[in-house]
Amino acid sequence: MGKNIINIALFGLGRIGQMHADNLLNHKNFNLKYIFDKDQKLTKKLSKKYNSIGVQNPKIAFKDKNIKCIFVASSTSTHVKFIKEAAKYKKVIFCEKPLDLNIDKVNKCFKEIKKYKPKIQLGFNRRYDPGHSSIKQELRKGKIGKLEKIIITSRDPAPPSLAYLKVSGGIFKDMMIHDFDLLRFYLEKDDIENIFTTASNISDKKFDKINDYELASCLLKSKKGVQCIITNSRHCSFGYDQRVELFGSKGMLISGNKSENETEIFTKNNTSQKKPLLNFFIDRYVEAYRLQLDELASYTKKNKKPISSFEDGRRALIIANAASASLKQKRQVKIKF
Amino acid sequence: MGKNIINIALFGLGRIGQMHADNLLNHKNFNLKYIFDKDQKLTKKLSKKYNSIGVQNPKIAFKDKNIKCIFVASSTSTHVKFIKEAAKYKKVIFCEKPLDLNIDKVNKCFKEIKKYKPKIQLGFNRRYDPGHSSIKQELRKGKIGKLEKIIITSRDPAPPSLAYLKVSGGIFKDMMIHDFDLLRFYLEKDDIENIFTTASNISDKKFDKINDYELASCLLKSKKGVQCIITNSRHCSFGYDQRVELFGSKGMLISGNKSENETEIFTKNNTSQKKPLLNFFIDRYVEAYRLQLDELASYTKKNKKPISSFEDGRRALIIANAASASLKQKRQVKIKF
Amino acid sequence: MGKNIINIALFGLGRIGQMHADNLLNHKNFNLKYIFDKDQKLTKKLSKKYNSIGVQNPKIAFKDKNIKCIFVASSTSTHVKFIKEAAKYKKVIFCEKPLDLNIDKVNKCFKEIKKYKPKIQLGFNRRYDPGHSSIKQELRKGKIGKLEKIIITSRDPAPPSLAYLKVSGGIFKDMMIHDFDLLRFYLEKDDIENIFTTASNISDKKFDKINDYELASCLLKSKKGVQCIITNSRHCSFGYDQRVELFGSKGMLISGNKSENETEIFTKNNTSQKKPLLNFFIDRYVEAYRLQLDELASYTKKNKKPISSFEDGRRALIIANAASASLKQKRQVKIKF
Amino acid sequence: MGKNIINIALFGLGRIGQMHADNLLNHKNFNLKYIFDKDQKLTKKLSKKYNSIGVQNPKIAFKDKNIKCIFVASSTSTHVKFIKEAAKYKKVIFCEKPLDLNIDKVNKCFKEIKKYKPKIQLGFNRRYDPGHSSIKQELRKGKIGKLEKIIITSRDPAPPSLAYLKVSGGIFKDMMIHDFDLLRFYLEKDDIENIFTTASNISDKKFDKINDYELASCLLKSKKGVQCIITNSRHCSFGYDQRVELFGSKGMLISGNKSENETEIFTKNNTSQKKPLLNFFIDRYVEAYRLQLDELASYTKKNKKPISSFEDGRRALIIANAASASLKQKRQVKIKF
Repeated sequence: MGKNIINIALFGLGRIGQMHADNLLNHKNFNLKYIFDKDQKLTKKLSKKYNSIGVQNPKIAFKDKNIKCIFVASSTSTHVKFIKEAAKYKKVIFCEKPLDLNIDKVNKCFKEIKKYKPKIQLGFNRRYDPGHSSIKQELRKGKIGKLEKIIITSRDPAPPSLAYLKVSGGIFKDMMIHDFDLLRFYLEKDDIENIFTTASNISDKKFDKINDYELASCLLKSKKGVQCIITNSRHCSFGYDQRVELFGSKGMLISGNKSENETEIFTKNNTSQKKPLLNFFIDRYVEAYRLQLDELASYTKKNKKPISSFEDGRRALIIANAASASLKQKRQVKIKF
Repeated sequence: MGKNIINIALFGLGRIGQMHADNLLNHKNFNLKYIFDKDQKLTKKLSKKYNSIGVQNPKIAFKDKNIKCIFVASSTSTHVKFIKEAAKYKKVIFCEKPLDLNIDKVNKCFKEIKKYKPKIQLGFNRRYDPGHSSIKQELRKGKIGKLEKIIITSRDPAPPSLAYLKVSGGIFKDMMIHDFDLLRFYLEKDDIENIFTTASNISDKKFDKINDYELASCLLKSKKGVQCIITNSRHCSFGYDQRVELFGSKGMLISGNKSENETEIFTKNNTSQKKPLLNFFIDRYVEAYRLQLDELASYTKKNKKPISSFEDGRRALIIANAASASLKQKRQVKIKF
Repeated sequence: MGKNIINIALFGLGRIGQMHADNLLNHKNFNLKYIFDKDQKLTKKLSKKYNSIGVQNPKIAFKDKNIKCIFVASSTSTHVKFIKEAAKYKKVIFCEKPLDLNIDKVNKCFKEIKKYKPKIQLGFNRRYDPGHSSIKQELRKGKIGKLEKIIITSRDPAPPSLAYLKVSGGIFKDMMIHDFDLLRFYLEKDDIENIFTTASNISDKKFDKINDYELASCLLKSKKGVQCIITNSRHCSFGYDQRVELFGSKGMLISGNKSENETEIFTKNNTSQKKPLLNFFIDRYVEAYRLQLDELASYTKKNKKPISSFEDGRRALIIANAASASLKQKRQVKIKF
Repeated sequence: MGKNIINIALFGLGRIGQMHADNLLNHKNFNLKYIFDKDQKLTKKLSKKYNSIGVQNPKIAFKDKNIKCIFVASSTSTHVKFIKEAAKYKKVIFCEKPLDLNIDKVNKCFKEIKKYKPKIQLGFNRRYDPGHSSIKQELRKGKIGKLEKIIITSRDPAPPSLAYLKVSGGIFKDMMIHDFDLLRFYLEKDDIENIFTTASNISDKKFDKINDYELASCLLKSKKGVQCIITNSRHCSFGYDQRVELFGSKGMLISGNKSENETEIFTKNNTSQKKPLLNFFIDRYVEAYRLQLDELASYTKKNKKPISSFEDGRRALIIANAASASLKQKRQVKIKF
């Protein structure tokens, strides 16, 4: 083990946690020393697979001075707790989105940990996507002049389980929060000023039962007048639809979908038929997840600030709350950060 | 002149009127017998070019029993007047959009002419576009299951003159009215229930002076819950951007932009660079204008109802009014037809 | 009838002749005064439809001093005869491709009519296609540096009737002749130096019986070393496949296929599925045919030389003959113009 | 180190060798135990970087019974020597293309090693590309009916160094050999029957000096009559151009280029401008190289035959020799395997 290797502990071994474990194992800068999950059997099983130490008490990781990073991918309700603890122990923290479903808890956490000058990177994966970040570079270079509109399409191939949906916090805090953050990624020093939301259930009636929505759309405006449109769907027959359009005074930038490969089929009935879209986030954002870890390594070793921060997580949550309020009040809601 | 030729009179010889004159002259079913414009010099000049009779009084056309159709392409404020007169004389009427800027005037007109059972075709050209109507056919065939979202992008290459803008009625009645109507074209028996609007001026400050907007976006919902998004811009550096996206439970349909030709350029700095978009409506909707006249001919000869009616014009205007109200009130406005 | 109208006589009223008749009737510069076909019944029938004079003897057209143009769209074997006669009568001649199937007859014709300084425009429609000619403009502007390769794909949607095939002169003189000419269109002052040909029948065995081919490919080289590839097929399930690729020291230019409209379908099994290609030459090259007539009008009125000449027709035929020779001899054949 | 890990020795540490070393280090099934290069300094340096044993004598690897695989990525002239030795020691062999520049040496080698029943996988990377192999699957499923044409475009972004070119064996054995093999990949039980070749130098005159070519094109025919076209260039301003088109009685399959990301730029002068193509083989065929190693692992552990064999290497070389012969003789050359 070279001196450049960062010892890391991973909390949470669900689907997303296991994906992060794989990425950490394949990343040259990290050594996945500890893993922890409330499911002790799972922790044990995976500790063998990963050749990591499975712990039943996260304290072990916090107290180990060789551990530089804590990677929080556990259930949302535990995020704040782990952040506080990790901050106290001066660890560099990676935390999956959302920070929490309750903004008061987040604000309180922020005040408490301030004194530790905590280093926290948020898991907004889309900021790291080569396509999405490439159009930000072009925007910065002035390729399309002044930014005037941002249009984000985000559709999941299929809804999560009902069990997950019940604790997800709803479409705004669970799904659209990614898009709220992505808007802010492009707006930079500008920020969201107000929001109007609409939502409906047309095909899948299970969402009615849990007071959630399969379809939602938002219209937001920034302080500088940039009009932002987000359109979400919990289902999408043709795959994981992930597009961003930036429109400006001098042009337009599009970050489009990714397909399995670059083939086309022409037959009697079809021309230029392409392969299905990459089906979900693990495949679509595979490079983003790798680049996210590159940044975590730089943050740990060189104190290079990440492009996705605690404050970004807090603000995205505030917008998500405003989205819900707008839906209830049928009016535009002003954002107060 | 065969018995199948329809004698027609054209009122209004501005840019759009002259375009319609050209189309009428090239259409095998029409004989452009009379032309009229309040500018007498222009009428005279064009009467020679078109080999038509230039009249200084529209009455001549109304009273000529050989005239079956009146084509109204004059300034908006004269539409209702000509419709009333033409209805009285039992002519088949083609009227450019919008019917009028004042909904009360339109409603009153409707009541007045009811007794004549008037035949009126509205000039919503986009309904006739082969691409836009092709995706409606696919929707009807069930290709994408239940309709859930309609997303319309409409951007003009450059704003009209300030003189025109001042009398245009504003972006909702002059420009977005096309998109309101296009939504209704896809919704069919469903209809718009409510609307929320946002608007801003970022690059072109002349719009501030006339209380109008260069950029506007709307979020609408239909009675059945279909979410509709319209995004408009009065400028677009890369040409006339005209796209429709229909999203449903089983798929998506896109009607895209048209380019000058199907060539691509690859160089050191560019790959797959395509030709500019067709620059404006006369080129982009050239086939739509032709098909519009085909329908006017069928309406006149076979009494086949047009796909764009007086009532469509009236409802689009009501939505445009609601758009303005929403902008002022910063809330969702309910549509009452 | 204005003084700018050109009186024209059309010889040949088959499929292609009737298409040209329609184009001439719709063109503002031409008056289709006479039509002639060896089928007298057809001539009579169409003379009514077109409101033209149907003649049983072409002499009537030749002797009419008001006739400025002779449009030759009759069967190939009659082209030379009509050209000679029309040249003698000082008419401007438009002749469909190929000039003849026999190069000796063409060469002899050329010598005979030389003294009349004949004005002849050849019917190589592809030279007039906006896409194909757009990439020639980019090439001339130096966009791709020195031209190094030309790759032409040309596939008909379905083979013609066996009756037509028997008298067609075979795939090289009937079909690939268009592509030989298109190569020369891009080579300009350079020209074809040698050719190698291969051909085969795989799916449709009727071609074996008539010593013709459904599939053929050629490799040609210009005097300057430009490598040219042509690939032809008499059938193409997905429509009329018409593509040109120019490759140069600094880039690549592609003139691609044209579809019915710009729509795309996304479903569970298909993404980005486009509409079928425009099905055949009348639709695909509709603009080319119109521009061809524009040029014929300019040639007649302003003596502006056409971009497709008798000599182009002669040279394309020489290359077609060399293609056949190469196929027999299984070797590269040198072209002598 | 688990029991499933395959110990491997890598010979050759040039550009391609180092790429393979990286891939082996990142592959879960391999342990890069030994590395060897004739450059002892380089071997030493890289042995540290890779944490591998750098050997000065390949015998050490051959004699180590724990070594299951020999990976030959050394200079072409040493391939046969290493294959013979590795076969004797019963190692599973991976060998980069081409086997050798001299077909007699290859044939002799084949006879000599026959008795060892050698396991050899050839380094024809394109067979493993997800796009190129996806269209083979569609072809096999009958998606396009009977195969009639194969068209391969292969252009390198820039020529290799003059030093490399001098020992490369020329464009047919060094570059086009990939495409000859790719044709055979699609032809399956059918095979190439004859070939005609053309070549030229237009922009880069250094190729003249070494009797080699920057531009080459081939026309081949299979035993069943499939027409095959290959077009190669040693330079390509817009990147690494790698396309395959399969045309059949019922349709067409295209395996297209890959770009850096899926973004598009629209400005006043450009519409739909895409990112540059992935620049060269290491990026373009990154997945192919990984899948190649997956297969090598399966071959070693489960004796599952690879899709790229010694015989494929031998036949591709025979075609390359025929290509040169055709160029000299200016005629079609028959292939004898």
